[in-house]
Amino acid sequence: MRKIEHIGIAVKSLETSNLLFEKLFGNPPYKEEEVASEGVKTSFFLNGPNKIELLEATNPESPIAKFLEKKGEGIHHIAFDVEDILSEMERLKNEGFTILNETPKKGADNKLVAFLHPKGTNGVLIELCQEIR
Amino acid sequence: MRKIEHIGIAVKSLETSNLLFEKLFGNPPYKEEEVASEGVKTSFFLNGPNKIELLEATNPESPIAKFLEKKGEGIHHIAFDVEDILSEMERLKNEGFTILNETPKKGADNKLVAFLHPKGTNGVLIELCQEIR
Repeated sequence: MRKIEHIGIAVKSLETSNLLFEKLFGNPPYKEEEVASEGVKTSFFLNGPNKIELLEATNPESPIAKFLEKKGEGIHHIAFDVEDILSEMERLKNEGFTILNETPKKGADNKLVAFLHPKGTNGVLIELCQEIR
Repeated sequence: MRKIEHIGIAVKSLETSNLLFEKLFGNPPYKEEEVASEGVKTSFFLNGPNKIELLEATNPESPIAKFLEKKGEGIHHIAFDVEDILSEMERLKNEGFTILNETPKKGADNKLVAFLHPKGTNGVLIELCQEIR
């Protein structure tokens, strides 16, 4: 794990929250992207070596819709940048962590991603993400 | 705001969670520190340009004790590194954000800190922090 790649924040409205985070950072999002398989629309803000990802649900069955319903708007996950997602998944499995997906899946922003079960990480949903080369 | 300085995670036991995050990062915390004024014991892990701060309550009236009671273990705040906390507080106040403390206060890890009200930031507790020079 080389750095915090991004923090994912669940929001009700990307349109409203884009304006809010633009005020916070002094810059607009550098991209917006829909990930149909996850039922989300996302926007990304750069902050030095890190990013903030805003997530809006596009259907009521998506994980983000369920998170919003249960907990309201707020931080959804932390993503750490890894060089080699397969070896990092293997290392963490051997350390006793539970990986939520058997194999990496395609995430937003040109990444392969995998999630650790938050029950094994103090309630924090942790994403591993590797740039697709 | 120049980068994510750290993410603060509320935990029940620093001792237990230090071991967990040591497995996650492959390194032990680089420091532990008590902030008596906030009623917390903290530990810090380095992750490239970023840090993870674990927070354990030292008394039942502390903000972290109340957070744990209400929400359980999990992400408590995001801290952004700023060059000049006073000018950043002024800029954000002018943008309509509510600052929880009028003047910066002394935080852990040699920092001056101020918090934004989460009601104005999509439920996310945001800390500004400036290295004390």
